[in-house]
Amino acid sequence: MFFASDNAGPAHPKVMDALIRANDGYRSGYGADAEMAEVTALIRDAFEAPEAAVFLVATGTAANSILLATMSNPWDTIFCADVAHIHEDECNAPEFYSGAKLTLVPTQIAKMSPDALQAAIAAEEERGVHGPQRGPVSVTQVTEKGTLYSVAELQALTSIAHEFGCKVHLDGARFTNALVALGCTPAEMSWKAGIDAVSFGGTKNGLLGVEACVIFDPKLAWEFALRRKRGGHLFSKHRFLSAQMLAYLTDDLWLDLARTANARMTQLAAGLQDNDRAELLYPAQANMTFTRFPRRDHKRLLDAGAHYYIWDGDVETGDPDALLTARLVTDWSTTPEAVDAFLTHLRQT
Amino acid sequence: MFFASDNAGPAHPKVMDALIRANDGYRSGYGADAEMAEVTALIRDAFEAPEAAVFLVATGTAANSILLATMSNPWDTIFCADVAHIHEDECNAPEFYSGAKLTLVPTQIAKMSPDALQAAIAAEEERGVHGPQRGPVSVTQVTEKGTLYSVAELQALTSIAHEFGCKVHLDGARFTNALVALGCTPAEMSWKAGIDAVSFGGTKNGLLGVEACVIFDPKLAWEFALRRKRGGHLFSKHRFLSAQMLAYLTDDLWLDLARTANARMTQLAAGLQDNDRAELLYPAQANMTFTRFPRRDHKRLLDAGAHYYIWDGDVETGDPDALLTARLVTDWSTTPEAVDAFLTHLRQT
Amino acid sequence: MFFASDNAGPAHPKVMDALIRANDGYRSGYGADAEMAEVTALIRDAFEAPEAAVFLVATGTAANSILLATMSNPWDTIFCADVAHIHEDECNAPEFYSGAKLTLVPTQIAKMSPDALQAAIAAEEERGVHGPQRGPVSVTQVTEKGTLYSVAELQALTSIAHEFGCKVHLDGARFTNALVALGCTPAEMSWKAGIDAVSFGGTKNGLLGVEACVIFDPKLAWEFALRRKRGGHLFSKHRFLSAQMLAYLTDDLWLDLARTANARMTQLAAGLQDNDRAELLYPAQANMTFTRFPRRDHKRLLDAGAHYYIWDGDVETGDPDALLTARLVTDWSTTPEAVDAFLTHLRQT
Amino acid sequence: MFFASDNAGPAHPKVMDALIRANDGYRSGYGADAEMAEVTALIRDAFEAPEAAVFLVATGTAANSILLATMSNPWDTIFCADVAHIHEDECNAPEFYSGAKLTLVPTQIAKMSPDALQAAIAAEEERGVHGPQRGPVSVTQVTEKGTLYSVAELQALTSIAHEFGCKVHLDGARFTNALVALGCTPAEMSWKAGIDAVSFGGTKNGLLGVEACVIFDPKLAWEFALRRKRGGHLFSKHRFLSAQMLAYLTDDLWLDLARTANARMTQLAAGLQDNDRAELLYPAQANMTFTRFPRRDHKRLLDAGAHYYIWDGDVETGDPDALLTARLVTDWSTTPEAVDAFLTHLRQT
Repeated sequence: MFFASDNAGPAHPKVMDALIRANDGYRSGYGADAEMAEVTALIRDAFEAPEAAVFLVATGTAANSILLATMSNPWDTIFCADVAHIHEDECNAPEFYSGAKLTLVPTQIAKMSPDALQAAIAAEEERGVHGPQRGPVSVTQVTEKGTLYSVAELQALTSIAHEFGCKVHLDGARFTNALVALGCTPAEMSWKAGIDAVSFGGTKNGLLGVEACVIFDPKLAWEFALRRKRGGHLFSKHRFLSAQMLAYLTDDLWLDLARTANARMTQLAAGLQDNDRAELLYPAQANMTFTRFPRRDHKRLLDAGAHYYIWDGDVETGDPDALLTARLVTDWSTTPEAVDAFLTHLRQT
Repeated sequence: MFFASDNAGPAHPKVMDALIRANDGYRSGYGADAEMAEVTALIRDAFEAPEAAVFLVATGTAANSILLATMSNPWDTIFCADVAHIHEDECNAPEFYSGAKLTLVPTQIAKMSPDALQAAIAAEEERGVHGPQRGPVSVTQVTEKGTLYSVAELQALTSIAHEFGCKVHLDGARFTNALVALGCTPAEMSWKAGIDAVSFGGTKNGLLGVEACVIFDPKLAWEFALRRKRGGHLFSKHRFLSAQMLAYLTDDLWLDLARTANARMTQLAAGLQDNDRAELLYPAQANMTFTRFPRRDHKRLLDAGAHYYIWDGDVETGDPDALLTARLVTDWSTTPEAVDAFLTHLRQT
Repeated sequence: MFFASDNAGPAHPKVMDALIRANDGYRSGYGADAEMAEVTALIRDAFEAPEAAVFLVATGTAANSILLATMSNPWDTIFCADVAHIHEDECNAPEFYSGAKLTLVPTQIAKMSPDALQAAIAAEEERGVHGPQRGPVSVTQVTEKGTLYSVAELQALTSIAHEFGCKVHLDGARFTNALVALGCTPAEMSWKAGIDAVSFGGTKNGLLGVEACVIFDPKLAWEFALRRKRGGHLFSKHRFLSAQMLAYLTDDLWLDLARTANARMTQLAAGLQDNDRAELLYPAQANMTFTRFPRRDHKRLLDAGAHYYIWDGDVETGDPDALLTARLVTDWSTTPEAVDAFLTHLRQT
Repeated sequence: MFFASDNAGPAHPKVMDALIRANDGYRSGYGADAEMAEVTALIRDAFEAPEAAVFLVATGTAANSILLATMSNPWDTIFCADVAHIHEDECNAPEFYSGAKLTLVPTQIAKMSPDALQAAIAAEEERGVHGPQRGPVSVTQVTEKGTLYSVAELQALTSIAHEFGCKVHLDGARFTNALVALGCTPAEMSWKAGIDAVSFGGTKNGLLGVEACVIFDPKLAWEFALRRKRGGHLFSKHRFLSAQMLAYLTDDLWLDLARTANARMTQLAAGLQDNDRAELLYPAQANMTFTRFPRRDHKRLLDAGAHYYIWDGDVETGDPDALLTARLVTDWSTTPEAVDAFLTHLRQT
């Protein structure tokens, strides 16, 4: 009953096998390994983007920060959701790499509306050098609350951004969970929808620690490469990143893992909806949800060995009926049995 | 016959096994894994430093840059060898992380003499706010030319640094190769010799990509932790870093691997010295050497499948007697047979 | 009829005289001039802070940015009003100097309430290294809307900040206008109210371009001095900054100039309140106000030669009854006649 | 007998008069003053560069740092003389603004030779992302030792830089002293000789504190403007910078002041050469020289009230024959009588 995070579970055995296979003999370092050439070809193919620049880094914070730095200037402001990971969870890394600041766009169910984005960008009125300049927009898909932008919604946001001359970054730490939920292609969820660069996550979906940075304008490639090295994110034994991503992209593993994680969430959300004492706070559209239930139920789950984060509410309070908000995340390794067990313990009286 | 770099060879099988073992079930992320607690204990034990702060990162550039940033101020200058990796090979990462600049100390066989260091620090005379302020000294062991500082030499350098109030960082990307060559303890080669913090390398000695940052003053730990996160170098699935380092430190694997690499270099250097046409440019004290031999010999080695970097000399020139400088590096996976083959091909006429 | 800004009017003649007097013979540079010693003594005396560190810079952005950088760490967030000058008008300078980010506290009439500040700081819950850390609070007095915090209100804000271990900076670009309006002492409006450092403005109150940075904890002085130099804000011919500030502090010139500016605003605000078609948007407590009146009145004022900024509303619209928001600022050089003329033109039909 | 620095003397009375004249009524701020339009026109005219972008800042460190940041990338290295002001005297400001590092080119009499520059740039061999990339070259004219590059020498340096694709910055804190010494035009000493941007100094030649930044490629103007604001170097009451520069450029004042300063140095150097006990260390080609004489002579000069800096040698030593190195600088306000008095006291026995 582990629902704490999709970075708490194991890597997929095929990924481990690929690591073992890659650990064979000598290889050129720093991204010149043969595996990386394959990764680049596969990603370009998957995204229908034969010119795209592809780079690997080992953390999502690195992917987001180096991409945003490459897309912005130090005197810019970057527009993002008020609950965005780049704002709340990266300890100023995007600002460190880019020099830019962040402008927070109000959200509902963690999603920026076109109007809210329009208003935020327009509010950075053109006052010469006094205020920050308009920089890129960063959109998160799957959002921080487990919700999704439809392709049309993404398109609406990028249209506004591009009207103002702003590029658009997609924080896709859970890109594949969104992709299989929407049932669209990577191209449809990225450049065809106006996205200029993607943090294409792997770590939360079965890898040990690899994210691909996909940049559709290859003219930005060299700057990204230099910023990656200057940030200390270029691996000498790069093959061990490439091998993970290669396994991920082989035989639809990435899609299968995300489908499994999402299916577990569907099962879990259905069970929560059947439970009178639990409330789903947002549509559970991918592999994460936030739900509210009484403290007494939480205690019982804890006693039964469940793991998850309490996002809101006083777990120490004496009132067993007090409501707590829990975040629940599934990953490829979550079993149907674990979901059932969770739901059973939650429902018990 | 692979002598290009100690980051071109494979990771040790025991390390791969440890990764597989760590890939079991759910684990807390971001360094709170149980393996990391073991790593910290083992490193403190190995360094006889029960209070030391220990952090893992995945690249040597990250280790050096975050440590130096933690030890300096943005208005400082960092003193280092004129051939130091932090100066030549990290694309301004140390400056990016610290804001400080580098002052290059002249070297012989890649080593700073106490006099040269003294002169460099003293030359940053106290002129109030106009010039940069005196920051930390960074010493590299094994040096960039494969030579070693004795413990007494390290002590001499740190004494000078401390006289001026400067802390000392050790870039130990090849720490263990130096350690077994000198036959001293980690404590003797670090804090007992006046070193304040160590980049304790693993990547070049059999790991996939892990370096430990060891800080003897625990008061700096929190700042390091924040700087690591702000640089995007904190891993969510941290267990996969811990597991590598844990295997490294278990059953003397780290020492055994370094001894093997050094033994191959001893064999190789002996063969080079027996060869009239080859010249060793520096004492080959650990697992790296620079040697000069005629272009004709280089061509023959290439044809035979040898891999190594030419550091100096025109490989395209027509003169078969022209001398080239080659860098040769051994690692734990280098075989005695490969060394013999190299020497045989080199000597052939 | 110039009400565009208190940085659009002339410097006071006594200040020009002081410049001329200072332009006499040779003087040590970089702040070692005799005038600076006098300035330091006078400011310490005025603030009843015999240990305070005092530095001069030439722009308000420099004063705010260097002070905030000295009071924070690169991984912090700085709490400020959502309309603060450091957020809206300094082109990322505070972020550039400090590395920190800004957290915007909601305001009413440009003032943070204790509750809003408390909520903002508390929301930066302690989540280890993931989010930014709690940095200093920056309070603006006179606020961006021409309103004032009472001393008790300042005290309430600083108490909350200090509870969380946060230092407090006062952006006092219009410090003296606030001081004479409140009728308190500099100490009462700064350190006695819990302020740790002040940007003590001169430029908007009769100087050519000088702001004093007053730091009550002298242990921060050396860091400030280095940051000032590193930012290029240390003047070689520093006497010309000192002379301005010296004239400012002599014979109560600073207080007289602010009283005059405020008196003109009192006159102007009274006239606006007597005018049925004009609305004062905020209490006009110092030397700035925002007022709303019909576009037809604006056109008439423009034709009559009035200068001021339209903050909101479409000046191009065809409807003469459409309301515009104007910002009106007085300074020491504003004449009662200019105010009368403005009011007369505004009221005309 | 003040020879300490050309920033220790007074501003020229015509400059003070211009300040007084500019202090008249209301003016737009932030560079939109009418005086600035005149300054831009005059500088474009003087440099025969009708498209040049012109900006004013108040310190030489700001001028150099913001220009170099505008001309470079954070992953570059900037090539400069090993004794350059940007290296020795600006407390890391160029690095702070640009993110780049500095590569020191060896000099003789403070001048880089074409060969030395060529070697330094070439040594940054193209190794992909590992090392810093080749950034701009910064040349100082007048040099830090009071020597000059001829126009042909400047041309030789810029040719090498441009071959490698590097832009060239001229640190012209003493631009006009060099100009009148060489007897060439501003265009000949700048863009016609391959210079891309100039820090055109005024502070050391009779102003209170103004430097013009002249950028021959107007496409860089907007970036410079943003960097200036982000650094806190945009003045609200900008007219007081403009007025100084306007007076400077009117009726050849800039040229007259530099000619006077240089003439005093000619007189001083001639007297030093006539003195057996004094040695000129470098050709005194503009308004600064370094000379060596016995400590006993120094003591006599001090007693007579002379002011200058001792650059080298132990002023505390007991030996009256010990040689000290003094730096002597003249400015527009130095009188022939002061030079004579200095020479007389020096020669006395």
